[in-house]
Amino acid sequence: MSDFPPVPLTLEGASTLHQFFRFDWKAWRAVPAAERTRMVNDFTAALQSLESDSSGKVQTALFSQLGHKGDLILLHFRNSFEALNRVELQLAQTALYDFLDLRHSYVSVVELGLYESTRKTYETAAAKGYPEFSPEWNLEVETSLQRGAEAMKPRLWPGVPNAKYLCFYPMDRKRDEQKNWYSVPFPERQRMMHEHGMIGRRYGDVVKQIITGSIGMDDWEWGVDLFADDPIIFKKLIYEMRFDEVSAEYALFGQFFLALRLQIDKLHGWMEGKV
Amino acid sequence: MSDFPPVPLTLEGASTLHQFFRFDWKAWRAVPAAERTRMVNDFTAALQSLESDSSGKVQTALFSQLGHKGDLILLHFRNSFEALNRVELQLAQTALYDFLDLRHSYVSVVELGLYESTRKTYETAAAKGYPEFSPEWNLEVETSLQRGAEAMKPRLWPGVPNAKYLCFYPMDRKRDEQKNWYSVPFPERQRMMHEHGMIGRRYGDVVKQIITGSIGMDDWEWGVDLFADDPIIFKKLIYEMRFDEVSAEYALFGQFFLALRLQIDKLHGWMEGKV
Amino acid sequence: MSDFPPVPLTLEGASTLHQFFRFDWKAWRAVPAAERTRMVNDFTAALQSLESDSSGKVQTALFSQLGHKGDLILLHFRNSFEALNRVELQLAQTALYDFLDLRHSYVSVVELGLYESTRKTYETAAAKGYPEFSPEWNLEVETSLQRGAEAMKPRLWPGVPNAKYLCFYPMDRKRDEQKNWYSVPFPERQRMMHEHGMIGRRYGDVVKQIITGSIGMDDWEWGVDLFADDPIIFKKLIYEMRFDEVSAEYALFGQFFLALRLQIDKLHGWMEGKV
Amino acid sequence: MSDFPPVPLTLEGASTLHQFFRFDWKAWRAVPAAERTRMVNDFTAALQSLESDSSGKVQTALFSQLGHKGDLILLHFRNSFEALNRVELQLAQTALYDFLDLRHSYVSVVELGLYESTRKTYETAAAKGYPEFSPEWNLEVETSLQRGAEAMKPRLWPGVPNAKYLCFYPMDRKRDEQKNWYSVPFPERQRMMHEHGMIGRRYGDVVKQIITGSIGMDDWEWGVDLFADDPIIFKKLIYEMRFDEVSAEYALFGQFFLALRLQIDKLHGWMEGKV
Amino acid sequence: MSDFPPVPLTLEGASTLHQFFRFDWKAWRAVPAAERTRMVNDFTAALQSLESDSSGKVQTALFSQLGHKGDLILLHFRNSFEALNRVELQLAQTALYDFLDLRHSYVSVVELGLYESTRKTYETAAAKGYPEFSPEWNLEVETSLQRGAEAMKPRLWPGVPNAKYLCFYPMDRKRDEQKNWYSVPFPERQRMMHEHGMIGRRYGDVVKQIITGSIGMDDWEWGVDLFADDPIIFKKLIYEMRFDEVSAEYALFGQFFLALRLQIDKLHGWMEGKV
Repeated sequence: MSDFPPVPLTLEGASTLHQFFRFDWKAWRAVPAAERTRMVNDFTAALQSLESDSSGKVQTALFSQLGHKGDLILLHFRNSFEALNRVELQLAQTALYDFLDLRHSYVSVVELGLYESTRKTYETAAAKGYPEFSPEWNLEVETSLQRGAEAMKPRLWPGVPNAKYLCFYPMDRKRDEQKNWYSVPFPERQRMMHEHGMIGRRYGDVVKQIITGSIGMDDWEWGVDLFADDPIIFKKLIYEMRFDEVSAEYALFGQFFLALRLQIDKLHGWMEGKV
Repeated sequence: MSDFPPVPLTLEGASTLHQFFRFDWKAWRAVPAAERTRMVNDFTAALQSLESDSSGKVQTALFSQLGHKGDLILLHFRNSFEALNRVELQLAQTALYDFLDLRHSYVSVVELGLYESTRKTYETAAAKGYPEFSPEWNLEVETSLQRGAEAMKPRLWPGVPNAKYLCFYPMDRKRDEQKNWYSVPFPERQRMMHEHGMIGRRYGDVVKQIITGSIGMDDWEWGVDLFADDPIIFKKLIYEMRFDEVSAEYALFGQFFLALRLQIDKLHGWMEGKV
Repeated sequence: MSDFPPVPLTLEGASTLHQFFRFDWKAWRAVPAAERTRMVNDFTAALQSLESDSSGKVQTALFSQLGHKGDLILLHFRNSFEALNRVELQLAQTALYDFLDLRHSYVSVVELGLYESTRKTYETAAAKGYPEFSPEWNLEVETSLQRGAEAMKPRLWPGVPNAKYLCFYPMDRKRDEQKNWYSVPFPERQRMMHEHGMIGRRYGDVVKQIITGSIGMDDWEWGVDLFADDPIIFKKLIYEMRFDEVSAEYALFGQFFLALRLQIDKLHGWMEGKV
Repeated sequence: MSDFPPVPLTLEGASTLHQFFRFDWKAWRAVPAAERTRMVNDFTAALQSLESDSSGKVQTALFSQLGHKGDLILLHFRNSFEALNRVELQLAQTALYDFLDLRHSYVSVVELGLYESTRKTYETAAAKGYPEFSPEWNLEVETSLQRGAEAMKPRLWPGVPNAKYLCFYPMDRKRDEQKNWYSVPFPERQRMMHEHGMIGRRYGDVVKQIITGSIGMDDWEWGVDLFADDPIIFKKLIYEMRFDEVSAEYALFGQFFLALRLQIDKLHGWMEGKV
Repeated sequence: MSDFPPVPLTLEGASTLHQFFRFDWKAWRAVPAAERTRMVNDFTAALQSLESDSSGKVQTALFSQLGHKGDLILLHFRNSFEALNRVELQLAQTALYDFLDLRHSYVSVVELGLYESTRKTYETAAAKGYPEFSPEWNLEVETSLQRGAEAMKPRLWPGVPNAKYLCFYPMDRKRDEQKNWYSVPFPERQRMMHEHGMIGRRYGDVVKQIITGSIGMDDWEWGVDLFADDPIIFKKLIYEMRFDEVSAEYALFGQFFLALRLQIDKLHGWMEGKV
């Protein structure tokens, strides 16, 4: 396998930020009603101005979270991390931000892992006799990546899917003493990823999935966002996947976050206890 | 075993939320007595309106917790996570909520794992020659699940059992390098789960148990609620189980929470030190 | 060994609570001296009313802790967890409680593990031909437990020993892939526990030990309280034990807490820096 | 290999401090605008006086961080840890420091690991027949180190590279039961480090890397700073490295921090939401 | 080796407390200058009264710490833990203590591990035919310990060494499934400790080391204090040791703390940013 670098090619799209906030109900209650209304209106307007990109795609969405890990989640897709940082700072300017306690976040970038096409590209380059990392080899790879980026544009630059529930969790591939994903030969990994993908495909009608990569950006290697109208489906899908080879043997999971989509104009109602 | 998917079927029932609060005694003491009384009355009324469903089943219960992990626990069963989120927001509207510090929570759904009937269903489908995941196979499974859901309705949609003490803990199945539950063949898992169940059965008269699943919903795979009048029974049961094969080799336990049931109308007394 | 359940019998006695408080010196200093005196006097009186049971046995003791994990420790033995919860709530009613920050706690029950007598009981029942868990078998076990509970009453319902220093730590038995206490055959465990006990016995004159079990009650399986006039003895004893087989191979230790006994009537002095 | 100590020689340069701050937007908003302006001006002036050394090299740089782990990062290179401590204390004197919450930091020293030249030096000393750690042997090593320090001065005493994005993470070499870096023979380690370095070299045009050592100084063994105009490059580089032998088998990673360079004179704008 | 208990003898000396404080710059800045001066003067006087014992040996020293883990460290040696507790309470009485946030601490006792002399003592006792733990055997051991305590008095009751920098870290010996220090035969451990000591000896001129034991006292087994004028030496020494057998295979390290000695009369200057 000397003509085969171990790393699969990836395509990167939208820079992504998850923000998890606890809401300070106590301080909020201490504010006069009129001022609260004004603050919610301003914040709502700020969120609405962030919500859609020029093509109408939803690039900032709001969620009402279950449990103590947070009350509100904001999910942002942007063209760059600089743009995401601008969003963070804009929100921090609002008066209502005083009542939001940023407890957790996740910084990542939409990623498509290309095990199948990587293999083809590497094999093509090898068939042409290009030495690894030679200019011709690099060009072959670069061309393949550009072709992929063009073809998969909608998946690389997604809008927030329209679904009632969100499930988010980060994950790693294990690097244990015996079970070490990064020491498994490429074809083995390709096979396991293919089988893994087959399960997801069976759930394709009822779950939308967006994978973001976060190596070099946050504390886990990947973030997974699932969107569905029925949250039991998250459980069914992830439980079934837990038995496939790549997950059973090589997946390491972080915390799980469950939330309900909250239309931005319903935020005022939310603060009065309506969801 | 090619006619045998590895994942056992499960039935899901009530969406479940555990809330663990520390009570802010210091801030509370600073409030004038009359205002305190008014706040407790309002909060008690709010809890009472949440307590029972239309059939009179207890769907929200209050507990007085031991130790520093919390002072009060609220356990809620509802028909959906949306309904649970509504409960969270309603409680957050009360004045007394300012004195409750939500330190921990658990989000899960009542689950019945069906190792025995899964095997039968899969074997029946295989005997009929249905290919896995074919429409006929899916229908066979779906029919079996519906039959189960009907038969086990009372266990899927439980009320909070009437007992003096509560023990709650989350748990995982181990995915270690050698002891990996998700790589164990189905019949082996079925056998171990059966033996595990036998122990529980011997304690059936003195402990009520509700298992909730939380894959895709919270940080552990399952939550276990035990209800008994004698808390020493929790220790006896869990200690005995720790020696059975599935627990000894494959169980990973989280934190343990111990509490006393507190009737909602006793909350005022509780705040004055009576339990 | 089919006539031999793996779980050793245990006897349970006093419900136990350890409370670890940081004292808020800053807020305290801000209070006028007269009010401070009044608060200490009230709190001292509250503690004194909790201190001894009707027979004069010390059931609530106060300690001055070293280091940042806490300033004051309260150790309570009671007849039930309900009684412990009552103690928690009573202390929370005092004005001085505003200056106590409950950082940690431990909930457990005094436990005597009966490896030797369990074996005899199980062997007797087997010799009589009783099937495991049959009514006769259960009766045999129950009778043995009652005999034990009677004989060991003073150890099951201890008062707080009179010694200058306290060492407390929680611990587990390991459940690793190869070294798994809960998979070791009963006679092996019995032998190791016996050898372990031999070390403790050599220290019996200078250290009093109280073991509490916390399976189903708190995050570790056991809590260990050691009482001695010379704290170096804690180190000598635990270091020596660390080399015996059961500790070396199967013990997992939590945090360690070191403190000095503080007579309740010395609390006022303590607050002025005297110990 | 008896003539071969296992430890590779290292060269140390600039003492380094990373400071990660959360900015207290709520408290900031409560300050009158004029006072805020004055405080930002004072803080900006303080940072500017720290920014460059006498030769104009950037020794203190400011970054705007993504996510909840921090809002602002300061990276300082100095000639000694005493000088770094002075910087910490100077910043703590500013009025704006009241709004900076130091959440995390990293203390380390610029390090060049010299696997190749260590081998040559040890072999030369051995060839000359010097016993290990003899005065002649020590002199041979010392001379080699001084030669290296002179030759690599610019890399040992770097300025902060001029790039749009920063990625920082700490790491260890694993010391597991079977995969233990510190038990691997020197030539094996040398080979793996060489291969590792080859990957970095291919990225040399688009990423600047500064390695700092922190054994004895902070909680991990090394800190890695990467500087690039395109943050996707961090992901590509680290992902590719994760498959090389030394990283796949022996690397243990800490948290990852991603940030944008913020010119000091843009800080006022940043506080008003502009980046 | 039946005549050979596995535990090495140890000698214990000074009771030791490390206190790690964050300084509350914000609250401090809010205090009028005159009051600040008065508070620093009082605190300085309190520290000075604690600094030296009757023989002039430094028993309380102050350090200025790098990074977010703390701003000031106090290191105290005393004759008993009771005396240390008294020091804690005395400092808590000062007005300046309101600005010190105790973030971490370490409780331990100066320890000399006696692998070599333990072996001789045990062999002597065995040669004399004394059964283990018999009165004669105990006396032989006791006599040996007393001889040692007398001979090593200056190392058991040290003053704080006079050096510019301090490095402190806690550590354990590993108790993993295969690499378990407490299951290694005594002579093997003795040999490894001897080799380990040889490295330290080569650094003896430039580093002073004080080992404290904390089994039964704090969360790790040992604490290590290193004192040197050049902090790079800490890194060199610990890195070199990391490759010796006992550290590579059996050491588990906690957090590392780096600080500069701060003469007590320089504390006022430190608060104004001078170090």
